[in-house]
Amino acid sequence: MEQVERIGVSVDKNLLGAFDELITKQGYQNRSEAIRDLIRKQLSEQCLGNLKAKAVAAVHLVYDHHSTKLMEKLTALQHSHLLRTICTMHIHLDAHDCLEIIVLKGTVGEINKMAEKMLSQKGVKLGNVNFVCAPGP
Amino acid sequence: MEQVERIGVSVDKNLLGAFDELITKQGYQNRSEAIRDLIRKQLSEQCLGNLKAKAVAAVHLVYDHHSTKLMEKLTALQHSHLLRTICTMHIHLDAHDCLEIIVLKGTVGEINKMAEKMLSQKGVKLGNVNFVCAPGP
Amino acid sequence: MEQVERIGVSVDKNLLGAFDELITKQGYQNRSEAIRDLIRKQLSEQCLGNLKAKAVAAVHLVYDHHSTKLMEKLTALQHSHLLRTICTMHIHLDAHDCLEIIVLKGTVGEINKMAEKMLSQKGVKLGNVNFVCAPGP
Amino acid sequence: MEQVERIGVSVDKNLLGAFDELITKQGYQNRSEAIRDLIRKQLSEQCLGNLKAKAVAAVHLVYDHHSTKLMEKLTALQHSHLLRTICTMHIHLDAHDCLEIIVLKGTVGEINKMAEKMLSQKGVKLGNVNFVCAPGP
Repeated sequence: MEQVERIGVSVDKNLLGAFDELITKQGYQNRSEAIRDLIRKQLSEQCLGNLKAKAVAAVHLVYDHHSTKLMEKLTALQHSHLLRTICTMHIHLDAHDCLEIIVLKGTVGEINKMAEKMLSQKGVKLGNVNFVCAPGP
Repeated sequence: MEQVERIGVSVDKNLLGAFDELITKQGYQNRSEAIRDLIRKQLSEQCLGNLKAKAVAAVHLVYDHHSTKLMEKLTALQHSHLLRTICTMHIHLDAHDCLEIIVLKGTVGEINKMAEKMLSQKGVKLGNVNFVCAPGP
Repeated sequence: MEQVERIGVSVDKNLLGAFDELITKQGYQNRSEAIRDLIRKQLSEQCLGNLKAKAVAAVHLVYDHHSTKLMEKLTALQHSHLLRTICTMHIHLDAHDCLEIIVLKGTVGEINKMAEKMLSQKGVKLGNVNFVCAPGP
Repeated sequence: MEQVERIGVSVDKNLLGAFDELITKQGYQNRSEAIRDLIRKQLSEQCLGNLKAKAVAAVHLVYDHHSTKLMEKLTALQHSHLLRTICTMHIHLDAHDCLEIIVLKGTVGEINKMAEKMLSQKGVKLGNVNFVCAPGP
């Protein structure tokens, strides 16, 4: 069970009004929750600037499953870095195209390099990497 | 089988040199492949500015699975928009935290609204939406 | 003189520790200041999703000043939208290239359209738009 | 005068159609121009991942000019890094707020650090950094 601290924050009335309006619209039930989320987002963004920081990331690839040997190559790439691939999810978009989401664990730098290799494969049409978190110990 | 056209492009020698160096490092085997990927990325980015464009997106949520009733609430949210949730993937990050990736189909505007509701739930620590494609015939 | 309110926020001890470390490194002198900045950033990002929101933006263009008639065209574009161009700044990058920063006022949608026209001019090598704020009344 | 090369690129007919439609809307007069811009954008984005790469950047700050001594502090910060500040532009947004754009030259890492110091000053309400280019020799 984590310990919780209560801190005081001074905010201009106008700014607070605009913030309350936004978070109500977004569905937050109280300000603390919304402010904690802002803090976590900020820490997460900062972490991504550090190539050595530990992170979990999802690589998203759109590809035509008719591409010769692409699936074998992607699988081989993942196995060549066995420790870092956690799992994958495969979605059929239409008769040709698939979306594959591959969750990797490693440093920001390693993940970027691996993602680059996947995205540059012939047959991969579109893709990107989404670093969601760099959780602490 | 898609038809392929061959177009000519004029590029300054210096710029071409820098581009060739980059794409070799990234692992591309030829320029056409790399340029097609740039074109797709550009089309995809443009599409996201249009709230009515059709898209597929992955919502990434990090949450503590001890949070009371969070998992039920997230599942309920997905079922309340049944047509748009394609599938989900759940990853155990550590003793407390999970990463859940939820793939949604719909318009950019609808997906944004749904994602906002999920991200603002109590217990969701971090999250974002990753629009990967807006393919269409 | 703006009125200031004091609100209480509950934050897990670990999260608070990581946040304090970050903001000290960034140079903040107290948490309130840092949290207010996070709130403003969030409001500003939200506003940019709304094409009708009022905003101020800086368009950044890199171009070769030898490009025939480019400067005339860019100036003409600005005058054709007279009310929205506030001012411009011109920086010599090297013997060929200039950086021009053009500050526009208008709705997010209008600014995007204007920026697109500028960026697509022949001779403009690189560019983007930076929405900095959508200040209230 | 730069040398220009003519390269051939194979593109699926559907993809080419969508691209042509987009660039016509954006105002491009030919495909070569649009593709060159994509290449430059890609090179520029890549460069920003390298903290040692040389870059030019514009820091955007929104602040209340009534903030005690803020303007002196910002000026002092710029002079303490004399070589890297190229010029600044100051815009009056309303009775209270100013937008200041400060153009800096240096490595990506140096610029980030300097920008962080500016953004964390008391009185600076909103801000960000916009790296526009990392032009070659």
